[in-house]
Amino acid sequence: METARGGGESKSDSSSSSSRLLTLHNALIVTMDPQSRVFRDGAIVIEHNTIIAIGHSPQILAQFSSLPSSQLLDLQGQFLLPGFINTHVHTSQQLARGIADDVPLLTWLHNCIWPYESNMTPHDSYISTLLCGIELIHSGVTCFAEAGGQHVSEMARAVELLGLRACLTESIMDCGEGLPMAWANRTTQHCIQSQKELYKKHHNTADGRIRIWLGIRQIMNATDLLLTQTRDTAKELQTGIHMISSLSKASVKVSHCPAAAMRMLGFAPIREMLDAGVCVSLGTDGAPSNNRMSIVDEMYLASLINKGREVFYKGTTDPTALPAEIILRMVTSNGAKSILWHKEIGSLEVGKKADMIVINPSSWSMVPLHDCISSLVYCMRSENIQSVMCNGEWIMKDRKILKVDESDVISMAKHASVELMKRAGITVPSRMTIL
Amino acid sequence: METARGGGESKSDSSSSSSRLLTLHNALIVTMDPQSRVFRDGAIVIEHNTIIAIGHSPQILAQFSSLPSSQLLDLQGQFLLPGFINTHVHTSQQLARGIADDVPLLTWLHNCIWPYESNMTPHDSYISTLLCGIELIHSGVTCFAEAGGQHVSEMARAVELLGLRACLTESIMDCGEGLPMAWANRTTQHCIQSQKELYKKHHNTADGRIRIWLGIRQIMNATDLLLTQTRDTAKELQTGIHMISSLSKASVKVSHCPAAAMRMLGFAPIREMLDAGVCVSLGTDGAPSNNRMSIVDEMYLASLINKGREVFYKGTTDPTALPAEIILRMVTSNGAKSILWHKEIGSLEVGKKADMIVINPSSWSMVPLHDCISSLVYCMRSENIQSVMCNGEWIMKDRKILKVDESDVISMAKHASVELMKRAGITVPSRMTIL
Repeated sequence: METARGGGESKSDSSSSSSRLLTLHNALIVTMDPQSRVFRDGAIVIEHNTIIAIGHSPQILAQFSSLPSSQLLDLQGQFLLPGFINTHVHTSQQLARGIADDVPLLTWLHNCIWPYESNMTPHDSYISTLLCGIELIHSGVTCFAEAGGQHVSEMARAVELLGLRACLTESIMDCGEGLPMAWANRTTQHCIQSQKELYKKHHNTADGRIRIWLGIRQIMNATDLLLTQTRDTAKELQTGIHMISSLSKASVKVSHCPAAAMRMLGFAPIREMLDAGVCVSLGTDGAPSNNRMSIVDEMYLASLINKGREVFYKGTTDPTALPAEIILRMVTSNGAKSILWHKEIGSLEVGKKADMIVINPSSWSMVPLHDCISSLVYCMRSENIQSVMCNGEWIMKDRKILKVDESDVISMAKHASVELMKRAGITVPSRMTIL
Repeated sequence: METARGGGESKSDSSSSSSRLLTLHNALIVTMDPQSRVFRDGAIVIEHNTIIAIGHSPQILAQFSSLPSSQLLDLQGQFLLPGFINTHVHTSQQLARGIADDVPLLTWLHNCIWPYESNMTPHDSYISTLLCGIELIHSGVTCFAEAGGQHVSEMARAVELLGLRACLTESIMDCGEGLPMAWANRTTQHCIQSQKELYKKHHNTADGRIRIWLGIRQIMNATDLLLTQTRDTAKELQTGIHMISSLSKASVKVSHCPAAAMRMLGFAPIREMLDAGVCVSLGTDGAPSNNRMSIVDEMYLASLINKGREVFYKGTTDPTALPAEIILRMVTSNGAKSILWHKEIGSLEVGKKADMIVINPSSWSMVPLHDCISSLVYCMRSENIQSVMCNGEWIMKDRKILKVDESDVISMAKHASVELMKRAGITVPSRMTIL
């Protein structure tokens, strides 16, 4: 058992009424710490938004349960894990789910996605991010990296409300064929200036849950000047750059999005990247590319397609490729490293932020549990994600989203998406004989 | 609107008290009939276990709602589809989920699956099939083809109780290296005799929901004599043969199991088979190969990996390959053809059995619904499957399994699986530092 009290801004006396201690016990805790420790009968203590102790339940309870400010929660043998990190997601695209399924890439981009995004209002962006955030939370995500979207201030408002943690990035393009009119005249200078303003307004807001990153939406839509100025601005602001790129230097982190890649890109050499020491994490990409925004399903997919892919290189599949424990790293500690937030999140360790999820492993989808680690990757579905905490606050409890009214958001999304499609002039062909 | 009354054994007068009419209305009905008809505001009328009318709600209600024996159910805009058909599943293996993840094929087979299956008691088989059946029902399956399992009489007992429809098949091997002792001395004669007895005892039982098929578990575990005698016996009994084989003749139907194939076999040439007119359906395979027994996830996977696979043949992925409407055929009408049951199931048409599922499309996982057909393949998850009817009886209603107590089965399965692992001497290595 390790404990730490005080230190930093959350310092407080355990006996004072201002301190808030929460002890979760009787859980199987998969810490994802560097030693890959798993506590069978584990407990964890949270003070404000920070983990201050972790270990076996009896010892933790002996030390903390008698403190007057301490609140206890018996997890009844459920699993406790670090919150999952989705390192590539377009929250603006949630209202576009299903607008361009089974069509070629350029049709997808020019006839559907660009008209859709360029016709979004700030309010559309807010609703889209709310709806996307609800799906992310239900899938066990506590933190995500936006891959480039519209109206970032409204995106930030939604993230703050939902209680999530995120690196937000504006969709940035300063050149390219066939861009919608609203975007075509955007100068490099304007792109950089806009992002500096967003940084000033939103970086490190929402109790430190929101960070602003710089964006390069696509390499073919960026001038050389934009690339160099983005690099310089990132250095100046000390923040990260989210771009779709090919690997160049060792410090590049890769977000593997298996579902979206199956449609548009193909098989990334993930095993080879891991062998070369590249930090690989997982992302869902946007709703019109996937269309499930579930990092849980992405784990399952990443493992399967990378086992299957070996048939094209070795002549047979390799069932041992990308084992479950490696996949779990991708959505936790590797995810945190990818978004440069690993000092605070990505594992359950003393001193880190309380971003964590409770998983119910006793349903028909996971029983029997012969291998509790592999079951998290191969059996678990989003319906096993029971509760989600971000930055010390429950944002979902017993599958109920706490910070927004889920049905209200769904109603708003249904309405807004229909209006947006009309404005953008996008129609979806019917596949069957609709009567 | 089409209607039909009477005819066959379910013939009855609509005004008599013995007839039972159920009208489901206000649904989006995806019929999967040969014309691919979809009724936006659709209704369907069921008499006993048979569909007697289908059409638009106003007309159907005008004709049927005033009949005294008629019961009405407003589906409130939910989707109604034919029950899904899983054409390759090992129900005996459900208790083995997770015993052999991330290991090579021969380790999987010789050190895990065979020891597990050869140590099963009849009661283990009963519990395993119950647990598997619960997962199948939650995934919208009303009918499955067992790919070869242990203690078929106990399997049949579980299927009858759950209310499912199934083609059941014994695991049949009469030769091969390294077979467990209990199986090694099984003669060809014994294999055929055993299946004839099962046929006599169970074929066409459970109100016609259970059929017995002949099995060839694996081609390398079958003598030539077994193959020819199986063929002759199938002809004599007029039933089907379930085997893992390569394609030979036009009448062979293929069950594509994408998740399991990614681990052990590789990419089947599905597009080429479809182009050649082969009837392709979908299966999950068994729990230790997949490990999700969800035909819903299998649809998602089948579409994605077959779009991605094209990169190895054409140089780019093909996002238009295996579109959603083709995938839906695989789990409905093609599934029915594959198991030779297409005259009675596989689509919602007058005269067919009432095997159908209600899908709730208004949750965060499917909203917005720009393309209702593609959303069923790319967005839907098992949690959207709301209710399931088989042979005119509800077997799940509002996500509650009706014919067995789900939590009782889970408890029994947890206990039985631990005992079975001990008897079989199988241990699962730990992947992390368990404390």
